[in-house]
Amino acid sequence: MCGIIGIADHQHAAQKAYLGLFALQHRGQEAAGIIAADRGRLAGRTALGLVAEAFPDRVLREIRGRAAVAHVRYATAGGSDLVNAQPLLFETVHGPIAIAHNGTLTNALHLRRKLESQGAIFRTSADSEVIVHLIARLPGPIEGAIAGALKQIDGAYSLIFLTPGKLIAVRDPRGFRPLCVGRLGRAPVFASETNAIHQMGARFVREVEPGELVVVHDGRLRSLKPFGPLPAPTQCVFEEIYFARPDSRVFGLSVQATRRALGRELAREMAPVKADVVVPVPDSGVPAALGFSRESGVDFEMGIVRSHYIGRTFIQPAQVLRDNSVNLKLSPIPEALRGKRIILIDDSIVRGTTSRRICRMLRRAGVAEIHMAICSPPIVSSCYYGIDTPRREELIAARGPVEATRRFIGVDSLTYLSTEGLLRAVGSRDFCLACFTGRYPTRIMDFEAALPSRVKTARPAAAKSPMGVA
Amino acid sequence: MCGIIGIADHQHAAQKAYLGLFALQHRGQEAAGIIAADRGRLAGRTALGLVAEAFPDRVLREIRGRAAVAHVRYATAGGSDLVNAQPLLFETVHGPIAIAHNGTLTNALHLRRKLESQGAIFRTSADSEVIVHLIARLPGPIEGAIAGALKQIDGAYSLIFLTPGKLIAVRDPRGFRPLCVGRLGRAPVFASETNAIHQMGARFVREVEPGELVVVHDGRLRSLKPFGPLPAPTQCVFEEIYFARPDSRVFGLSVQATRRALGRELAREMAPVKADVVVPVPDSGVPAALGFSRESGVDFEMGIVRSHYIGRTFIQPAQVLRDNSVNLKLSPIPEALRGKRIILIDDSIVRGTTSRRICRMLRRAGVAEIHMAICSPPIVSSCYYGIDTPRREELIAARGPVEATRRFIGVDSLTYLSTEGLLRAVGSRDFCLACFTGRYPTRIMDFEAALPSRVKTARPAAAKSPMGVA
Amino acid sequence: MCGIIGIADHQHAAQKAYLGLFALQHRGQEAAGIIAADRGRLAGRTALGLVAEAFPDRVLREIRGRAAVAHVRYATAGGSDLVNAQPLLFETVHGPIAIAHNGTLTNALHLRRKLESQGAIFRTSADSEVIVHLIARLPGPIEGAIAGALKQIDGAYSLIFLTPGKLIAVRDPRGFRPLCVGRLGRAPVFASETNAIHQMGARFVREVEPGELVVVHDGRLRSLKPFGPLPAPTQCVFEEIYFARPDSRVFGLSVQATRRALGRELAREMAPVKADVVVPVPDSGVPAALGFSRESGVDFEMGIVRSHYIGRTFIQPAQVLRDNSVNLKLSPIPEALRGKRIILIDDSIVRGTTSRRICRMLRRAGVAEIHMAICSPPIVSSCYYGIDTPRREELIAARGPVEATRRFIGVDSLTYLSTEGLLRAVGSRDFCLACFTGRYPTRIMDFEAALPSRVKTARPAAAKSPMGVA
Amino acid sequence: MCGIIGIADHQHAAQKAYLGLFALQHRGQEAAGIIAADRGRLAGRTALGLVAEAFPDRVLREIRGRAAVAHVRYATAGGSDLVNAQPLLFETVHGPIAIAHNGTLTNALHLRRKLESQGAIFRTSADSEVIVHLIARLPGPIEGAIAGALKQIDGAYSLIFLTPGKLIAVRDPRGFRPLCVGRLGRAPVFASETNAIHQMGARFVREVEPGELVVVHDGRLRSLKPFGPLPAPTQCVFEEIYFARPDSRVFGLSVQATRRALGRELAREMAPVKADVVVPVPDSGVPAALGFSRESGVDFEMGIVRSHYIGRTFIQPAQVLRDNSVNLKLSPIPEALRGKRIILIDDSIVRGTTSRRICRMLRRAGVAEIHMAICSPPIVSSCYYGIDTPRREELIAARGPVEATRRFIGVDSLTYLSTEGLLRAVGSRDFCLACFTGRYPTRIMDFEAALPSRVKTARPAAAKSPMGVA
Repeated sequence: MCGIIGIADHQHAAQKAYLGLFALQHRGQEAAGIIAADRGRLAGRTALGLVAEAFPDRVLREIRGRAAVAHVRYATAGGSDLVNAQPLLFETVHGPIAIAHNGTLTNALHLRRKLESQGAIFRTSADSEVIVHLIARLPGPIEGAIAGALKQIDGAYSLIFLTPGKLIAVRDPRGFRPLCVGRLGRAPVFASETNAIHQMGARFVREVEPGELVVVHDGRLRSLKPFGPLPAPTQCVFEEIYFARPDSRVFGLSVQATRRALGRELAREMAPVKADVVVPVPDSGVPAALGFSRESGVDFEMGIVRSHYIGRTFIQPAQVLRDNSVNLKLSPIPEALRGKRIILIDDSIVRGTTSRRICRMLRRAGVAEIHMAICSPPIVSSCYYGIDTPRREELIAARGPVEATRRFIGVDSLTYLSTEGLLRAVGSRDFCLACFTGRYPTRIMDFEAALPSRVKTARPAAAKSPMGVA
Repeated sequence: MCGIIGIADHQHAAQKAYLGLFALQHRGQEAAGIIAADRGRLAGRTALGLVAEAFPDRVLREIRGRAAVAHVRYATAGGSDLVNAQPLLFETVHGPIAIAHNGTLTNALHLRRKLESQGAIFRTSADSEVIVHLIARLPGPIEGAIAGALKQIDGAYSLIFLTPGKLIAVRDPRGFRPLCVGRLGRAPVFASETNAIHQMGARFVREVEPGELVVVHDGRLRSLKPFGPLPAPTQCVFEEIYFARPDSRVFGLSVQATRRALGRELAREMAPVKADVVVPVPDSGVPAALGFSRESGVDFEMGIVRSHYIGRTFIQPAQVLRDNSVNLKLSPIPEALRGKRIILIDDSIVRGTTSRRICRMLRRAGVAEIHMAICSPPIVSSCYYGIDTPRREELIAARGPVEATRRFIGVDSLTYLSTEGLLRAVGSRDFCLACFTGRYPTRIMDFEAALPSRVKTARPAAAKSPMGVA
Repeated sequence: MCGIIGIADHQHAAQKAYLGLFALQHRGQEAAGIIAADRGRLAGRTALGLVAEAFPDRVLREIRGRAAVAHVRYATAGGSDLVNAQPLLFETVHGPIAIAHNGTLTNALHLRRKLESQGAIFRTSADSEVIVHLIARLPGPIEGAIAGALKQIDGAYSLIFLTPGKLIAVRDPRGFRPLCVGRLGRAPVFASETNAIHQMGARFVREVEPGELVVVHDGRLRSLKPFGPLPAPTQCVFEEIYFARPDSRVFGLSVQATRRALGRELAREMAPVKADVVVPVPDSGVPAALGFSRESGVDFEMGIVRSHYIGRTFIQPAQVLRDNSVNLKLSPIPEALRGKRIILIDDSIVRGTTSRRICRMLRRAGVAEIHMAICSPPIVSSCYYGIDTPRREELIAARGPVEATRRFIGVDSLTYLSTEGLLRAVGSRDFCLACFTGRYPTRIMDFEAALPSRVKTARPAAAKSPMGVA
Repeated sequence: MCGIIGIADHQHAAQKAYLGLFALQHRGQEAAGIIAADRGRLAGRTALGLVAEAFPDRVLREIRGRAAVAHVRYATAGGSDLVNAQPLLFETVHGPIAIAHNGTLTNALHLRRKLESQGAIFRTSADSEVIVHLIARLPGPIEGAIAGALKQIDGAYSLIFLTPGKLIAVRDPRGFRPLCVGRLGRAPVFASETNAIHQMGARFVREVEPGELVVVHDGRLRSLKPFGPLPAPTQCVFEEIYFARPDSRVFGLSVQATRRALGRELAREMAPVKADVVVPVPDSGVPAALGFSRESGVDFEMGIVRSHYIGRTFIQPAQVLRDNSVNLKLSPIPEALRGKRIILIDDSIVRGTTSRRICRMLRRAGVAEIHMAICSPPIVSSCYYGIDTPRREELIAARGPVEATRRFIGVDSLTYLSTEGLLRAVGSRDFCLACFTGRYPTRIMDFEAALPSRVKTARPAAAKSPMGVA
């Protein structure tokens, strides 16, 4: 749940990286960082908060150099631990190296314990630090050391490395997380999503392929395939359903068109639909609701308004607001809803508590019947590949039948899209569906003890206080 | 372009006012203030920035008392002048008095010069300070002094006053700006829009009527009509078109339904429509585009995405962003637009520069034809009643025929809603249409010299530096 | 307890005023402000905190113009009320006017009630606002209006006014507070103390005389004596004893030399002195202790060290520190004190609690005998002329005989300087000794009801919260 | 040029450490940090700025646990590199470990290159990180690993380590930097200077001896001597002359008494002294000037006043101030100096530029003759043991004879204390005099290439930007 950017051979590398981060802000709001390479040195800044907060003008202008790597980090519980903010920057036998990581490793803890027993010391709780330790123990050149390190790693990673001389981008062999290449004039750029490529003023060229390692050096771009024969791709389908921005292409698909297709498939599965209006939970439900409306013929209505002013600043609002956050973020339009039978479209249900609050709000606004339609199958398993789903016990769909969920949320009916419908909408089988099926495509060594109930302490501990090591 | 809140007889008056301000944040992002009455004193805080930034928990908790008045102020050019932030607080012969004002007076400068010649001293450049001076020169009770003062005033005002014993709400005789009453349990509440009433957990009771003065004292609510026979109402139609939130009722109309009707009327006037998709400029164009799509039968498409992260924090982003602000706020979905003939729906055109940038962006995304459809008539005159339109020379529609605007913006066709269509959509003639017609319903003494080209210095000077008096 | 600065006809007026404020920082740490006159406008800034905190580079650079007035304000209890920070800035019939005030008026409340009854409105609780109201009701030219206003005023004031065309400095007829004139090249400068004149790079010319009004206009300096025959001066002797900086001349006396003389006189009155060392309470006691040591022949010892890091930043240290503030600010040098009989020199005793804590600290460090020697007479009355002494009941010397004070503080002997000794040290009778004698040289109308026990609420209320009017 | 604190077995460990840091603030103003051990975890905070700025109440309260280690860091040029702020916190095979370091290692770069070649990765440019790497490669128990690591280290270090179970304090075999032990009730405390022991409310017990390693575990204090036969101590004499606080005992000497003795020795060497007054450069010159005055019989005068408000806040004052910093910090008292022949006492001369500015200021104040008397020998060599002296070329005494320095500073005569006088004053030969003699008591491997002109880049680079690795 992070976003990464790389750029080389450009006069305003840090400024362009900043524009790119801005477009990836939805992938992480907790912290932001930019490191640039300038005359043999790497230097930059990481800070807590939104990109615009972390990089005031004067700070941004000080980050000089023709290549840069950048990162936004997702807000994890309780975390204001700047020490973990990326890009991480280390000095090694290969010289200084910066790393930006999107994804989660599944054997990092195992490797960390082994490295510690060999005398390694760790400063962060980030699994990404393990990668740098492995690299530092292998001979150069740096791209060889990186490839050698990644062969020891399991899990999900899209990575961008920066050294004083090279920019290196990699996607794991299964391609869990997205990463794409573009060109800004002649300068190569990398970003998690295509909208960032466009935001930087660059043109989209192609995706980095699963298992591909791209080296940018002296203006040339070299593609390596260090992993040998690759398994079938298992790209994260949740990027399409919820996580990516609708104006991006991800894994070759237009995100908005895919969400529209999800709504259309759901309408087909629910046909015939008897309702007065189709109402999306904004904003992620809007494209699907439009697809559903078109397919079903039921009128589309923006019956819920989303505030632009909630939850978007690092400055915490007063407690009185935080106690009521759903009500502040979303508000119903009584005139559009009163006495109506509505199809309420949302992308997914995790714990069910948010949906319940929304439905209570709709009831108070006078809705007659709520038929909740979810554009994905029930989430029954935790994700170990970078999506911050809670542990299994907290997933409402893992705790009981659909009827129980329906009663908990308080709706008149509840329908999920089938796995088949989902696959029809995305038009391919090259996706990871583990959160819907429990079938994980890789070993998940660090978490195995935790299955089926994932134990919090089994992963590198999230710091409770600003800085801490357990 | 401000929002105001009042509440009386409630244990958590300031906290509730804060919730209300939050819902009115779209009416003003520059500054926020809350003043409460506690044991014979008035005290509180005004600060620059968004409500959530201006009132951290610890500050909000310190504002005690059972009655409060609150205000959000619109960002005016160059202004970080805290001294003008409202509610203004003065001590007078009537005791302390706080005032929150939405609207603009049209003879304030004239009155100010007269008051100064009588020895009055002014601390702010706000026209609202004139009102307090007039009140202080009239005998009590306070509601009588307020009525006497307002009889000398021309222009647009919805006002809430707070004294240690009374809360008083007034709307000017023509009702330019909205103001409504609700009940939170037994506690009377006032707010610019109904969505704030709901956000506070209260129920909407009715609008304060044009020319009505409501006194809350000792738990009782008294309605006065001090102005004698009233002129026909001239409520601001721009509140319906653009300014108010879609989940509010304003002047008795559902804002969202009204905007939908504007789109429907425009579709009728443009029929038959030949296009592939109807695309709104988000967010204000969405309801109208839905209405247009329904009426015309042309498919609705969210072809432009609005970022949630731009312009929402008091902290200024780096210069590199501010140079490109439209591109950052809005981005097209190429897959949804490429090769299409689109109807682009927006609420209005002011200078035309924003529309031009949007259309260039759409061209780059591959749109084949852009037919721009504006849900209001051309804006040809400045507003002197509280909407921050620029001076006449900067209004593109005042500078040439529609064809010139079309060429400037760079679209294939440009259609405005007719004044008749606008009146059909709002279903009444009780509105001010001055910005479309140039026919001002009141004297505008302060600005007369400035007509037709309104001179900036003719109004109380906007401070350039943090604090200043010309 | 404030410091004021004025400067005219200088290219960098605000920057020079800033340097001057820096030198007056000891006169007020709560708030700072600078207002400059630029092309017919007055503009500037006031902010809470130390001068260096209130005026970062970027803010200071924005304050343009060739004349400026500036102010530092003393930290009054609980007060973070920016609205009262000076210079105050108002617009009047004379045009804009800024005022910086050092001193306290003794009939401000009386005048304020009268002005309010005539329709005046007040924004601050500062007595200085009354002066501006009086000025605004009198005909020009401005210096005439100022003189007319001040004739209605009782109490202590050194004032600097700024208008777009003139800089005007006044000292009250009795000369309670200091004010001096200098020249920076040809530019006239005014400051509360001579050290600020020097800090600005200017040369000291003379003091503004009691009852003198100096007008700077078009590069010329005109002296007016509007008050007619003047009473004998009653300059504040406490400026010499404690308040002013030792590197200043105040009322024609070198402050450091005067303090040395106070110590010398005290040594004479206490002769013969039997002790091992003379130890000052730093920093204000140092010059007196040196004088005492020289006169008595007893060795001088810096036995107490003062921390440079306590209480000097606007950022409040953690509670654990504030609970112990004396211990953190001052610490003994055990090696220099153990087993010694010491003469402990301090400038004055107010409540006695600080002295008690210091003496306990010295006992713990092993001091054998403490003979406390105070370089001024017992303080038995509150000051109504600008020194922030507490009300009479809290003055330990007003509550009982010297012996009771000695026991409370816990010293072996306690000696105050006699009034005669004090007068010998300052070499003149032109001083106000009211705090030692209770004989006030003027009417103190606002406080009369409060005598002998001054009632807090009898003065314009100090705001408890950021902004408030009782 | 840092200060360190340790405490174990106390309920409010972090709060007490905070009090201790406060007393060591003069040893470092750039950054502060506190790490505590709580239920098997280490957590805390480091921040830029003064202690009071870095630890607001709410932050301090969150640092829980019964043992803590703390650090203040000296302001190095350009450095706002939080990543280097101490205590450093790492996770190793021994579990989490925090380290606070005062001193400089002289073979850290050499060891770092060796460790990197073995795969170690470095996050900071602090030489202290090398120590942790060495520890992590040795078997437990932790105190054995620490001893083993330190045997590989050359240079100056007083160190405090914290693990979840143990607190360990060490002083290097030559005892360059001070470290002492105290007891707060039964809780063992450690601090760089005795004044911090007292500030924490504890009693001084003894110094940690050179080459001693003290382990606190389960309430018991164990002393180890892991280094075998020790060389003669070479304690830093500059701690006595300038660096330590006068209310501390350092290396068994009262700092204030030692400074007084330095002044006395200097007076003897200069006898007979012909002058009107002895004037110290405050504050460090005060005790020596008192000693000089007593010995020579020449009158002591506080002729220069030091501002309490300059340079004490993290917030940078405006540029106009920084251009003039000496003038703002120190100001002369003309009345005390005019026409006088003065002995100006200072502790040392480094570049000579500060002395020159002070003397120019004194000339402007009318001093007739300035005889500068320095209480230490000429500084001719850089320090590699933790005092931040500049490189040799910038040391004025290394660049020419005393007569050249005298002319540069602009005084009538210039006298340094002799090395013999210095040794008489400190009463022992167990001191490092390298800065006066160029005879370094240890290998200084990292810097050897740099001798005699120390090359800046030879040490781990100080980051210019917030975070950076060369």
